[in-house]
Amino acid sequence: MIGKTHSNRNLLTTDRIMTLTDGIFAIAMTLLVLSIEVPKKEAVTAGAALHQYLLALYPQFFNYFLSFYLLSRLWINLHRVYHDIIRTDDRHIWINISLLMFVVLVPFSASLDAEYSGDFSAVAIFHANMLVIAVLYFWNWSYAARNHRLIEADFPDAVITLMKKRMLVFPVTALLALLISIMTPSYSTLTYLFIPFCVVRLRNIQNSLR
Amino acid sequence: MIGKTHSNRNLLTTDRIMTLTDGIFAIAMTLLVLSIEVPKKEAVTAGAALHQYLLALYPQFFNYFLSFYLLSRLWINLHRVYHDIIRTDDRHIWINISLLMFVVLVPFSASLDAEYSGDFSAVAIFHANMLVIAVLYFWNWSYAARNHRLIEADFPDAVITLMKKRMLVFPVTALLALLISIMTPSYSTLTYLFIPFCVVRLRNIQNSLR
Amino acid sequence: MIGKTHSNRNLLTTDRIMTLTDGIFAIAMTLLVLSIEVPKKEAVTAGAALHQYLLALYPQFFNYFLSFYLLSRLWINLHRVYHDIIRTDDRHIWINISLLMFVVLVPFSASLDAEYSGDFSAVAIFHANMLVIAVLYFWNWSYAARNHRLIEADFPDAVITLMKKRMLVFPVTALLALLISIMTPSYSTLTYLFIPFCVVRLRNIQNSLR
Amino acid sequence: MIGKTHSNRNLLTTDRIMTLTDGIFAIAMTLLVLSIEVPKKEAVTAGAALHQYLLALYPQFFNYFLSFYLLSRLWINLHRVYHDIIRTDDRHIWINISLLMFVVLVPFSASLDAEYSGDFSAVAIFHANMLVIAVLYFWNWSYAARNHRLIEADFPDAVITLMKKRMLVFPVTALLALLISIMTPSYSTLTYLFIPFCVVRLRNIQNSLR
Repeated sequence: MIGKTHSNRNLLTTDRIMTLTDGIFAIAMTLLVLSIEVPKKEAVTAGAALHQYLLALYPQFFNYFLSFYLLSRLWINLHRVYHDIIRTDDRHIWINISLLMFVVLVPFSASLDAEYSGDFSAVAIFHANMLVIAVLYFWNWSYAARNHRLIEADFPDAVITLMKKRMLVFPVTALLALLISIMTPSYSTLTYLFIPFCVVRLRNIQNSLR
Repeated sequence: MIGKTHSNRNLLTTDRIMTLTDGIFAIAMTLLVLSIEVPKKEAVTAGAALHQYLLALYPQFFNYFLSFYLLSRLWINLHRVYHDIIRTDDRHIWINISLLMFVVLVPFSASLDAEYSGDFSAVAIFHANMLVIAVLYFWNWSYAARNHRLIEADFPDAVITLMKKRMLVFPVTALLALLISIMTPSYSTLTYLFIPFCVVRLRNIQNSLR
Repeated sequence: MIGKTHSNRNLLTTDRIMTLTDGIFAIAMTLLVLSIEVPKKEAVTAGAALHQYLLALYPQFFNYFLSFYLLSRLWINLHRVYHDIIRTDDRHIWINISLLMFVVLVPFSASLDAEYSGDFSAVAIFHANMLVIAVLYFWNWSYAARNHRLIEADFPDAVITLMKKRMLVFPVTALLALLISIMTPSYSTLTYLFIPFCVVRLRNIQNSLR
Repeated sequence: MIGKTHSNRNLLTTDRIMTLTDGIFAIAMTLLVLSIEVPKKEAVTAGAALHQYLLALYPQFFNYFLSFYLLSRLWINLHRVYHDIIRTDDRHIWINISLLMFVVLVPFSASLDAEYSGDFSAVAIFHANMLVIAVLYFWNWSYAARNHRLIEADFPDAVITLMKKRMLVFPVTALLALLISIMTPSYSTLTYLFIPFCVVRLRNIQNSLR
């Protein structure tokens, strides 16, 4: 006979998952800098050449700041969502680990996007990466909230719906970016600038409803 | 004369070891992405070439997802095991540090396996790495559980045995992969796909026993 | 209707931000070592050549120790500031995330500065990076302290002003370094050695005032 | 007037320093793996060549395991020492940050030692790195323990002396390795194998004294 305390062993607390999430986000965000390379001395012959090399790094810098921004926003939002999630289960853990798998890919896909910003296959990989992250992030909450599975029993349904709507901004933007990249890969990454604008609008609407 | 409180100094709490474990797993899992390299501009001349280059990265992606999956599962299981381990001692600490040593090697061996998936020596290093991790993981629990050394005195023996059995899945799979790689290195890495299947089966058996 | 507890959801605790800060500082400080490269075997033919190569690494070592020192001091001071900040809001979070964005850039800009210490554009990027960090660090406190927005209501105004004055040392030094680099890029990085001297002086003045 | 609570602001708790220490050790230990490089496909033409390349990596593997072992032992011992240190001050913080500065250098110096194991200048940098770490580690405790500055007032002097003696093993070994490297660089790294032997001996002596 297995006692009650031991049959509960399968449930990891959400704290543990957040620790791994914190670690992986911090590292993935820091690895983004590795995509901005210091030029090799052989490649730079004169001061003017270095100057030009550094100016030519602007897509790398743009993608660095954009990816850092998207990952930070996601990290902040994940913590807000986890504030409401009070328990976890096996499937929920694996949704989160899948999310982390694609977060760790961002330094690769962001770097690819910056290096080949005019090439559809490179740019599409970045957008697809963001789309998968956004869908898993949405799934994380919708799985936890369904029938109040992993949240408080008295958690208001209106808030669940409102949170779901706000979480649609990210996947819809990523999908839009992917579609735009079919026509114009070079400018498709600018689509994400839509997110901060959208977030501010949604907050104003939300405040006016109260 | 040395007082009682100071003679206990040698015992590190399990919390400290888990902090190092959390950090090292998060970093090792994130470093896995470094094995997927952005192609050098010199190597890619046309858009079509980049497209082909990216498709040729599929063994890197497969190994990335597989290694991330194996390390995540190990991390989750380690936390479950540590939930039952209530104290530690010197030998136990060093079993765990040895485990971490081989976990940190995974970004190297996974990258080697992906780059030279048809070469026995490369593939065997990956499988050997996984085998050592799996054996140390098994040893970690069997050392802690022997005579209830590092666990509660009333921890049921049936659960100890059950946990040991479940922990055999990983070393047996790694050994099998190593043996298969003698005949066919290219496909031997697929052996690990056996693990999620096996875990689900074992859980069903376990549930039916209750 | 949205309950009171849920409308507070937007406020992340300062603890969460400090966790991300701790992680990112630790990783950025560790990545600094990647700028000191082990010479390729092809480049070194004899023992004498290695000896000379290692001596030629002195700007890399100087920049490594300097950047590590500046980031450690910033990290220590951030923790002191956060000791007084008892709550946070959206804008405050984004000031901090912007700070982290530029902290993560340090391994790049420090490496660039070391490799091209005689080139204005390279050196200016390092100083500009430090200046942005220093300004955001100052802004972090001045935003939190204005009208006691994020600090205790009875926090003495004299201490707020004193802290602001001390926080001016870093941006002023970075600006000075940037100006000096216009005339002499090679030696401008030495300007930061002014900081430890200044900190000791300010502490003595502060102590004599009590 | 500055209140009493605010004049204490300068004292960071030891917890904060340990958090940075944990992060930096975990990352430095994980970066050690980057010194073991996957061979470029261009360099390897046949399966036999890869086999030989991997065998030629043995100094890299030896140095990886040795450095990981030394850093783990240091990390464990630091936690034991910090268990007895109940407060900190400015100088103590900077002793610790200096220690971290040289810990972060280990991935560089270990990699240099492995790549040029027959060259005195390369090997001496590794030993000097270890010596500085060992001296700072000794200084950390001797500073904290002098006049019971940062430890409990009733901490027994006998234990302070015993701990100091045990902490001499590491700097003496590093100094010995440095001296041996003048004569024979290639084998000098083996000197550190003396440490586990020495630790076991000291523990036996300590136990017989009780």
